[in-house]
Amino acid sequence: MIYFDNAATSFPKPDIVYQSIMKAMKEYGANPGRSGHKLALRLGREIFETREVIAKLFNIKNPMNVIFTFNCTESLNLGIKGILNRGDHVVTTSMEHNSVLRPLKALEKEGIETTIVKGDLMGRINPIDIENSIKHNTKLIITTHISNLTGTIIPIEAIGQIAKKNGIYYLVDAAQSAGVYNIDVEKMNIDMLAFPGHKCLLGPQGTGGLYIREGLDIKEMGQGGTGSISHLLEQPGVRPDRYESGTPNGPGIIGLGAGINYILQEGMDKVRKHEEELTKHFIEEITKIDKVKVYGPLDVRYQAAVVPINIGDVDSSELSYILDQDYDIEVRPGLHCAPIAHKTIGTFEQGVVRFSFGLYNTHEEIEQGIKAIKEISREA
Amino acid sequence: MIYFDNAATSFPKPDIVYQSIMKAMKEYGANPGRSGHKLALRLGREIFETREVIAKLFNIKNPMNVIFTFNCTESLNLGIKGILNRGDHVVTTSMEHNSVLRPLKALEKEGIETTIVKGDLMGRINPIDIENSIKHNTKLIITTHISNLTGTIIPIEAIGQIAKKNGIYYLVDAAQSAGVYNIDVEKMNIDMLAFPGHKCLLGPQGTGGLYIREGLDIKEMGQGGTGSISHLLEQPGVRPDRYESGTPNGPGIIGLGAGINYILQEGMDKVRKHEEELTKHFIEEITKIDKVKVYGPLDVRYQAAVVPINIGDVDSSELSYILDQDYDIEVRPGLHCAPIAHKTIGTFEQGVVRFSFGLYNTHEEIEQGIKAIKEISREA
Repeated sequence: MIYFDNAATSFPKPDIVYQSIMKAMKEYGANPGRSGHKLALRLGREIFETREVIAKLFNIKNPMNVIFTFNCTESLNLGIKGILNRGDHVVTTSMEHNSVLRPLKALEKEGIETTIVKGDLMGRINPIDIENSIKHNTKLIITTHISNLTGTIIPIEAIGQIAKKNGIYYLVDAAQSAGVYNIDVEKMNIDMLAFPGHKCLLGPQGTGGLYIREGLDIKEMGQGGTGSISHLLEQPGVRPDRYESGTPNGPGIIGLGAGINYILQEGMDKVRKHEEELTKHFIEEITKIDKVKVYGPLDVRYQAAVVPINIGDVDSSELSYILDQDYDIEVRPGLHCAPIAHKTIGTFEQGVVRFSFGLYNTHEEIEQGIKAIKEISREA
Repeated sequence: MIYFDNAATSFPKPDIVYQSIMKAMKEYGANPGRSGHKLALRLGREIFETREVIAKLFNIKNPMNVIFTFNCTESLNLGIKGILNRGDHVVTTSMEHNSVLRPLKALEKEGIETTIVKGDLMGRINPIDIENSIKHNTKLIITTHISNLTGTIIPIEAIGQIAKKNGIYYLVDAAQSAGVYNIDVEKMNIDMLAFPGHKCLLGPQGTGGLYIREGLDIKEMGQGGTGSISHLLEQPGVRPDRYESGTPNGPGIIGLGAGINYILQEGMDKVRKHEEELTKHFIEEITKIDKVKVYGPLDVRYQAAVVPINIGDVDSSELSYILDQDYDIEVRPGLHCAPIAHKTIGTFEQGVVRFSFGLYNTHEEIEQGIKAIKEISREA
């Protein structure tokens, strides 16, 4: 079986991730921060270590500004809804995932206005278009770092400068980039950074996070027990407690820490270069094949390890099914929860089949993928 | 090490739970519902099987009315905020956890009014007091099933009848009961049931759920990708998708299913009887010890395997520390995120040390706990 669906979730994970989760569950699977005994303290301490390594990865000065969430979607909802109020205006892009677009759509009913800056046919966003969309009441800019549909890398540093210059907050959706592409919240002027644990950071499902800049006061989505200031009925204002009510995914967070440490030990540059090599070769070869349409910038300087394709007019679900059944190659068809991105690149009707590569994919697997596409396109 | 902190999180879990999680992560750790390939389909199917076994456990007719969440706190926030609007009135009790009280406190600012029915010194709630608190604008009754502080069992069936008779919705917090005490949402007139995965249901942290009665239209807390109706920017109305945006905790849900199946195979009555025996003996013996104060009904017909104590005026944190350091017994001190419950039973200043027993505790461990309390109280 060849797994080319890493943009949905990375698979497999490094062994150390599995081992760390199992060790935490079996040896000290207590409730961190809820009790003071050895097990609870150990789990609490290691959760803090994961906060620290995330802070290190993204150049976040204070680890307490890293909030753990259930997934990147929750992170985005928290960031978006926490900061916006009636009368505010938001600028975002046509390349966003539904995890950004649907919360914004829901907020329309509450009097929050959105401008969607359109990308070009390759999914590229021009920062100038973002700057031109700023109005007197623009409070927030939201962009993805890498399109989950086309792999297009969005120039977040340039957009961060625009945000800073105009006194507007900047929220980055790092769902497809955190763990592979360099992100520096200080240098890039990122006020909030949403990321999943289970994609390129190599952690388990059920983990994610949101960085919130020091002093940026956003509303919490939920309230509950925090193990702190328990005598008060008001939600505590202290971070991360304010945003982390109830029992956390302790062993999951330990696994996430192990995943990030694995990346740091391997070297993020090495991981990225590996993915770039695979992607470059794959794009080069499949663009030569008759009837194959490939989307995105088609240049690894501007496109991550996410390559959407179609073969002639074959329905994307059918193509994906053939790859799964006849070639044991796992990819994802359809709209990928990014409807406007499909309109942007002209694939809203057909969908695309998305190939997405990861740490553990090999050159040999890429060759097999290319071979499969050649064979199918011959018969299409 | 003796673990008496099962009310915070059950530990350890049955081996099959660890094995199921590992198997899911290593063999088919894809993104369910996001792709159509073998791995994703298998994980999706097994997640549905967990929905089914939860439906079976609580006598829920349609498994699609079981919503998976991050934890019980999220379930409660979803249930509470999803249903209440400005001008509504809620009846709840003084025995609730901060996961109920803090969301209600936050809603006060939005014009939602709360009446807190006070329990007696044993933490008992009189259903008549609840009925007497109902007003013309009462929309919701919220009670815990079992107090996390005193173990007091709340008569949810009687309260459910009151809710039904008065045309009011009933939300039950089953944080301490789901998996040990019988819950039948039909028979008990429960409209929403919030439960954690990692306590008596023996699943991992990072799992929880909310049952929402068929046809009860509550607002979702977040929006995002659901892998369904992806061409629409509006959040889909279909269950469970409406309430489950983003990647779920796939392997965690598989582990939760394994935990529930384990309980059903053992027999929930057998598990409960075991816990009752331990609790009965523990209460009988420690109530005989000089200087020891024990709280709750002190009768296992009305008290679950949660026993709060104090020794003289010893600070609860200190007592807990001694138990941990000198006896290797893990318990929880303090306020347990239930401040009004402490006021109800008169322990707001001192806190309590909570002993909470689970499936894997033995009679021998209970004897050691009793012995430790005897020794400490002699020196106190």
